[in-house]
Amino acid sequence: MNSILKRIYEKVLPLVGEGNVADYIPALASVNPNQFGIAIYSNKGECYTIGDAKTPFSIQSISKVFSLTLAMKHYGEGMWKRVGREPSGLPFNSLVQLEYEGGVPRNPFINAGAIVVSDMNQTRFATPHYAMREFVRRLSGNPNIKTDKVVADSEYEHRSRNAAMAYLMKSFDNFDNDVEDVLHNYFSNCALRMNCVDLAKAFGFLANKGYCMINNEQVVSEQQARQINALMATSGLYDEAGTFAYMVGLPGKSGVGGGIVAIVPNQFSICVWSPCLNKVGNSLAGVAALEALSSEIGWSVF
Amino acid sequence: MNSILKRIYEKVLPLVGEGNVADYIPALASVNPNQFGIAIYSNKGECYTIGDAKTPFSIQSISKVFSLTLAMKHYGEGMWKRVGREPSGLPFNSLVQLEYEGGVPRNPFINAGAIVVSDMNQTRFATPHYAMREFVRRLSGNPNIKTDKVVADSEYEHRSRNAAMAYLMKSFDNFDNDVEDVLHNYFSNCALRMNCVDLAKAFGFLANKGYCMINNEQVVSEQQARQINALMATSGLYDEAGTFAYMVGLPGKSGVGGGIVAIVPNQFSICVWSPCLNKVGNSLAGVAALEALSSEIGWSVF
Amino acid sequence: MNSILKRIYEKVLPLVGEGNVADYIPALASVNPNQFGIAIYSNKGECYTIGDAKTPFSIQSISKVFSLTLAMKHYGEGMWKRVGREPSGLPFNSLVQLEYEGGVPRNPFINAGAIVVSDMNQTRFATPHYAMREFVRRLSGNPNIKTDKVVADSEYEHRSRNAAMAYLMKSFDNFDNDVEDVLHNYFSNCALRMNCVDLAKAFGFLANKGYCMINNEQVVSEQQARQINALMATSGLYDEAGTFAYMVGLPGKSGVGGGIVAIVPNQFSICVWSPCLNKVGNSLAGVAALEALSSEIGWSVF
Amino acid sequence: MNSILKRIYEKVLPLVGEGNVADYIPALASVNPNQFGIAIYSNKGECYTIGDAKTPFSIQSISKVFSLTLAMKHYGEGMWKRVGREPSGLPFNSLVQLEYEGGVPRNPFINAGAIVVSDMNQTRFATPHYAMREFVRRLSGNPNIKTDKVVADSEYEHRSRNAAMAYLMKSFDNFDNDVEDVLHNYFSNCALRMNCVDLAKAFGFLANKGYCMINNEQVVSEQQARQINALMATSGLYDEAGTFAYMVGLPGKSGVGGGIVAIVPNQFSICVWSPCLNKVGNSLAGVAALEALSSEIGWSVF
Repeated sequence: MNSILKRIYEKVLPLVGEGNVADYIPALASVNPNQFGIAIYSNKGECYTIGDAKTPFSIQSISKVFSLTLAMKHYGEGMWKRVGREPSGLPFNSLVQLEYEGGVPRNPFINAGAIVVSDMNQTRFATPHYAMREFVRRLSGNPNIKTDKVVADSEYEHRSRNAAMAYLMKSFDNFDNDVEDVLHNYFSNCALRMNCVDLAKAFGFLANKGYCMINNEQVVSEQQARQINALMATSGLYDEAGTFAYMVGLPGKSGVGGGIVAIVPNQFSICVWSPCLNKVGNSLAGVAALEALSSEIGWSVF
Repeated sequence: MNSILKRIYEKVLPLVGEGNVADYIPALASVNPNQFGIAIYSNKGECYTIGDAKTPFSIQSISKVFSLTLAMKHYGEGMWKRVGREPSGLPFNSLVQLEYEGGVPRNPFINAGAIVVSDMNQTRFATPHYAMREFVRRLSGNPNIKTDKVVADSEYEHRSRNAAMAYLMKSFDNFDNDVEDVLHNYFSNCALRMNCVDLAKAFGFLANKGYCMINNEQVVSEQQARQINALMATSGLYDEAGTFAYMVGLPGKSGVGGGIVAIVPNQFSICVWSPCLNKVGNSLAGVAALEALSSEIGWSVF
Repeated sequence: MNSILKRIYEKVLPLVGEGNVADYIPALASVNPNQFGIAIYSNKGECYTIGDAKTPFSIQSISKVFSLTLAMKHYGEGMWKRVGREPSGLPFNSLVQLEYEGGVPRNPFINAGAIVVSDMNQTRFATPHYAMREFVRRLSGNPNIKTDKVVADSEYEHRSRNAAMAYLMKSFDNFDNDVEDVLHNYFSNCALRMNCVDLAKAFGFLANKGYCMINNEQVVSEQQARQINALMATSGLYDEAGTFAYMVGLPGKSGVGGGIVAIVPNQFSICVWSPCLNKVGNSLAGVAALEALSSEIGWSVF
Repeated sequence: MNSILKRIYEKVLPLVGEGNVADYIPALASVNPNQFGIAIYSNKGECYTIGDAKTPFSIQSISKVFSLTLAMKHYGEGMWKRVGREPSGLPFNSLVQLEYEGGVPRNPFINAGAIVVSDMNQTRFATPHYAMREFVRRLSGNPNIKTDKVVADSEYEHRSRNAAMAYLMKSFDNFDNDVEDVLHNYFSNCALRMNCVDLAKAFGFLANKGYCMINNEQVVSEQQARQINALMATSGLYDEAGTFAYMVGLPGKSGVGGGIVAIVPNQFSICVWSPCLNKVGNSLAGVAALEALSSEIGWSVF
């Protein structure tokens, strides 16, 4: 594995720096674009790394999988009356579809869907962001995972579009808590800083029938783990999910911080990271690395 | 396998007849709704059946996978400049998205996408429908597969909406041949009559790394077989693809004739059939049977 | 005029009570539906009334004309970079169009447009709602016009959809002030209570080349008065503006409180009121009364 | 009037040639862009002209008013169940709205609306285009008005988008005749060649209570004439109708051949022509000329 990892790292390295760093808030725009790391965590507990695998970055939308997991643990199948399970076919922050479909977001990985999931977690937890941070610390075995308050505050300051979505859902009676409270927690979750190793480990339960080896916990049932993977496979990479399935063939979830996690069911959880994004908002080098890895090792689930 | 099949057949039987038979053309509306069959074809060449597995039915949109396969064999990656690989997030016959996205359909399994694929095959074959019929006869080993001319003619007569899509694509310069010619062949492909056994066998190559055991032919490369499966997984069940991935976890493709094919990669190809459809146009009992099968045997790829 | 008014009043009376009172907030839902009044104010200063012409009601969207007038006085042609002058072709509270057109509302009479106009007035006035109330008191000569605080508060409480629009515009940088502040003032303007006589008089300047006879003031230029009338003619009656032009042929503006004002250029300003609304949100009896009046007297401007 | 006309002609002349000639078919693209003419026809039978007022040009969408007039004469109010009377808020050739609104076009002046009106006329007349040509010859008193067959054939060859609309309406059961037949006649109507004088005279009945002085015929009732004017006022200038009402204040109808007709009710019918178009498809110099004329003479109906 280490030699494959090295070969792929070197193959993809020339792409690092191509594309553009997310720049909608200053705190993200200032990241050094020439970083690239990979971590692969096996169901046997081995962790393979290369490059900047231990440099923390802003996990952003990858947090949506953790939020979903917390909501599924608590609400089970009941949660699906408030959010769909279908790919959206539109940019992640579109309001058009939300209006046509009566305030029920298409899936938990577009912004509107993640916000309504945050609203569910808001109802359940006294301090939702601390619950979330505690959760990812346990899953990854790293008690030092931090929230980047500068990023969280800056996201909140630029919240207009997400606020528009939240209010639109509220106008359709699909929102229970105070919009501002939910957005604060939502942005704090996005602003968690983790490195590739943290994320590969934290996602280990999805490659391992719902069981987290780090803290010996059945996080969700085996079936739920497969269901979360299915949702990632159809909706995890913004408006590139179909192409990612076609090229890589693995469930995955990306964030505008440049991280992408992917699951090889029953075998591995992977995190790649490189800050520059392609046109749809996925890490350009990250996608290339996952394509190369999957093709080399024959990992496609299909 | 036979006993599992029997158990699931009996479990699902009470649902047969629920929902509604497709009625947009008379030839489909008159089918007996109380039919239900399953065929499972293994990579070892075994075929397990139950119920009406040998009654032919109109394959309808399942033909889109065969059209795509023929186009991929000939055009390779070049075909993707004319059709996308992303889920659509809208009904299968919507023109809205086609207009916003400049006449390039989102994927080959919505109507517009299958029509543009038919346009590609029209350019390539002198008699496209006969080429297609010959192809499915070879894949299934059944030389008696017929085209239902009454259905084909009736579809053509009710072609307005599909004609609108074809002309809209033509207005965006994404159409090479005569609209009427392409529609004739497209509808003839949809009007092929096959039974569950035919379809399970004909889809065998997708469970078997692209190799068809029936006529010992490498139909497409292993990678292409996985890619076709990936496209089915993200876009194969109309606006229910995400839920199907969540519930069943297998690549699949449905048709309004009530058939659904599904692939267990490296193991089985499956065809279920029951004419009554749920609200999004998928066989109600067929989806239930695949849910039960997948859950019982633990077939989810995720 | 009095006899015509009487004849039309009696002709329309059987329609009063048909349709439905606006019920999205309790304060509006509780109004007595069986009320009906008309006031016609001539450029010679005569005022003809019949029915409940002196019963105050919630002017709602009619306030959008006053807001626009205040903004045009101050910003002149410069205001049109922030809001368009085209009919919308969609319901008054749609976000779809706002998203496609980059946060610039189509005209000042849909909600988004009126909110952005309120944002302009917020920038200009220290206490925007008091400035507005003072303005309509002066225009109508009635110093007792009040704001219905119960209605304003209830609208604010149910602000979600309007808040969504405001935040969406803010996300496109077409919003200068605090969203909550602007909405407070916007709803207070909608909650002004005026009767038919007040409104007919207050709109007199639009029938009189921009000149208000009540307080001898050139409110806007003659050209601006014609321009405001033109905007009412193309966009003043929600998604019924074209039919209103076809049937009535006069510039007009309606509100969900059941009031409609109309202008006979160079001659009359009219206010009709009856609380029950037709399907698109215009007073059912009010529209009928204006059709009858216009047809009887030959008032169509076309 | 002649001196005003001269002053405005000279004022606008520098704009002639700005913008772009319609180029979607070669026959239109080859027109000399530096042409500019105005004709004003009074209810007293006087005709004032300047510039290229006697050079024939392709009337294009101006023909939609003639088609509508023929349909209203025959079908009366019954026609409005097949086409609406509301502004569209979208480009003239959009299919989006047509799909959302179930195949009923918003008004008779967008392409879909004019095509459905042509379908009505197809039902009524044995040779619809000849009936139309005869109609405009009578209205203008010019028996030599010709159809430009090269333009008509070229439009037909590039019919894809209009064909898509027609088939989409057919799919919603809002189309009675053969799509190809109707399109042939529709394009022939668009391809009529008339000059400014022809058009000013032919539109005289709309300024004159429905009465045509040329051939002493009550073309439509006075009320219908006002209704046609109302429809032009709200929907006659593509996605610039609101701005045209704001700036010019007259009912008008434009065509991509560069012609614009406008009505001063009870006084004048006007035709301006200059081939170069602004961004929304209206004659750039033509709009400027009408703004100047209306403002100079105080013609706004508002």
